[in-house]
Amino acid sequence: MTTQPLQTSLQEHTITFPDPFPLECGAVLPGITVRYHSSYGTHTGRNVIWICHALTANSNPADWWPTLVGTDKFFDPAQDYLICANVLGSCYGSTQPDGPDFPVISIRDMVQAHEKLRQHLGIDNVHLLIGGSSGGFQSVEWAVSHPHICNNLCLIACSAQISPWATALNESQRMALHADPTFLNGNGTPTTNQGTATTQQNQNDSTSQPGNNEKPETTTTPGYNGLAVARSIALLSYRSYEGYCQTQAETENDALTATRAGSYQQYQGQKLAERFCAYSYYTLTRSLDSHNVGRHRGGVPAALSRITARTLCLGIDSDLLFPLSEIDYMARHIPGAQMGTLSSDFGHDGFLLEHEQITSQLCKFLNSEARP
Amino acid sequence: MTTQPLQTSLQEHTITFPDPFPLECGAVLPGITVRYHSSYGTHTGRNVIWICHALTANSNPADWWPTLVGTDKFFDPAQDYLICANVLGSCYGSTQPDGPDFPVISIRDMVQAHEKLRQHLGIDNVHLLIGGSSGGFQSVEWAVSHPHICNNLCLIACSAQISPWATALNESQRMALHADPTFLNGNGTPTTNQGTATTQQNQNDSTSQPGNNEKPETTTTPGYNGLAVARSIALLSYRSYEGYCQTQAETENDALTATRAGSYQQYQGQKLAERFCAYSYYTLTRSLDSHNVGRHRGGVPAALSRITARTLCLGIDSDLLFPLSEIDYMARHIPGAQMGTLSSDFGHDGFLLEHEQITSQLCKFLNSEARP
Repeated sequence: MTTQPLQTSLQEHTITFPDPFPLECGAVLPGITVRYHSSYGTHTGRNVIWICHALTANSNPADWWPTLVGTDKFFDPAQDYLICANVLGSCYGSTQPDGPDFPVISIRDMVQAHEKLRQHLGIDNVHLLIGGSSGGFQSVEWAVSHPHICNNLCLIACSAQISPWATALNESQRMALHADPTFLNGNGTPTTNQGTATTQQNQNDSTSQPGNNEKPETTTTPGYNGLAVARSIALLSYRSYEGYCQTQAETENDALTATRAGSYQQYQGQKLAERFCAYSYYTLTRSLDSHNVGRHRGGVPAALSRITARTLCLGIDSDLLFPLSEIDYMARHIPGAQMGTLSSDFGHDGFLLEHEQITSQLCKFLNSEARP
Repeated sequence: MTTQPLQTSLQEHTITFPDPFPLECGAVLPGITVRYHSSYGTHTGRNVIWICHALTANSNPADWWPTLVGTDKFFDPAQDYLICANVLGSCYGSTQPDGPDFPVISIRDMVQAHEKLRQHLGIDNVHLLIGGSSGGFQSVEWAVSHPHICNNLCLIACSAQISPWATALNESQRMALHADPTFLNGNGTPTTNQGTATTQQNQNDSTSQPGNNEKPETTTTPGYNGLAVARSIALLSYRSYEGYCQTQAETENDALTATRAGSYQQYQGQKLAERFCAYSYYTLTRSLDSHNVGRHRGGVPAALSRITARTLCLGIDSDLLFPLSEIDYMARHIPGAQMGTLSSDFGHDGFLLEHEQITSQLCKFLNSEARP
């Protein structure tokens, strides 16, 4: 244990593009702000690794993917030029919604913002574009819409189109936000009930991202309770039956009711409600439901056939949110793509937890010489 | 199509037991009321089939299990003496909670109420005790606590103890109820937003139980929105990825966002909120979390070893809520028990949908002569 301040080895930037930004839904943002993290220095002469983050993460992958990103890790900011941008609609520095009526921000809109940033930075070529979960949504969409910009593509625990199952999960979460009247009326929930979450810690707590210093600067928190419920629902889809058995089993045989897993749901729900914004969360779940690389492109197979990058699709055998069949579907329709399976008891969250398997598969993929 | 009124062939009764009814939690109800349905006439000289109902169902199995119960069905009220009692805490005629602070009603308390009814009716011997989901909780608990009363036991899509995974699901639903302030403050949600559910019908709509005539008689509905969210969450655990793909796939490739599965969640959530009571729902999810046949009995295996009935345990291969491993566990620990698997794309709800397989397995089981 040292007491040195943590060096993330990535530099934070915030850039504003003042031009009107037309959204796919027809609305126009007057301009957009994009928060991003990147390696120190310039990208010239270095391999550019563009990492797309998932739903409630931020632009600092050393924060939420510390097993893969950092000094001497597989993605070392000092070796390659790493970059990750906070998605439009998130509350970690990019343009975010100011209320429940914000227009739909599609995955394509997020990619369009990434594109503006890429062009602004003069990055002509991305050596590897990688993302898991909704980070994978952005990655596959980008590789379809702008096939020429990336050499290698790694899609983890995601799909080419949102499934009815995932939409049902997303809608349940939006219903939870609407059941909390402070979400619509904007009155902050009194903060007296904040911070009362059970202090249970969990050794497989992959959702503890990012730190408190990223907490949105609000004194009241509209939709706090609804957001906690939404997170509790989402968590179920990120884990698995087996994962809960391993980490949340009751320890007392004679108790009247089981409580441990319930306390964990409350704790995780409140933890997200403390660090995230309900309006951003609502907007981002709608973004998920916009994901369909085949829209106005003649369907998903036709869209995926546009991809020219060497592609590795990684699925997780216990993933309830993105079953292996969805990853396999992408791999079969992206020209020359490879498919790999990560074995995990922790469901969808395996994309954050199974770093050794991811590293091993990525190593093999990037070192192999075969090109499509 | 005929216009004849539906004959359920079961008679409704309501009985009050005025004696104080001590609950497992230590509270005492001043007396209890039990609503039940049974075959016309008496049970004397007929095989008694006792059916235990699941979470939000009622005491009329011809309503919610019409493919198995009715004239010329496997369970024919005219042939055998069928009986089903509304569980304590439900809002379909038995003693129900009057607010959010009602004491915990455990599965054992429910079984104790069934026992009072059985003794009152002078039923010494139950030929078959059967239940699916939380109906299976009651059945297995009853067979453990009173092994002598039943000859045959059929447990479908259930377990001997609530799992951490199921508790996490239940807690998420209780969080949803709490996020709706009308649940705690008792103010009814204005009914103007009731009945606005999308009128989408679903051909696999196993959850449309029971009819409007069972709607609780309230003019305001505390916890309406929270209950709709809770149902939407629960529905996810009753179905499966594959089931949603089959019934809720988007039909329009070029729409900005997927909406069909979301509309279905809203519809189903509101449909339950129209017919059920949030306080009952809350209470019954706590009952689920009380399920542990091993409590104060030296653990689950010791408890299951008490069962003397011939037992058939049926699991569903796509059940997310009660994976086959849980059914297999019961079958391995109940002396001489048989295990059967139902194949379904519809997850836990297979226990309501896969009637042909259930009938076939039950036929084989009840006709076979082997006894433990």
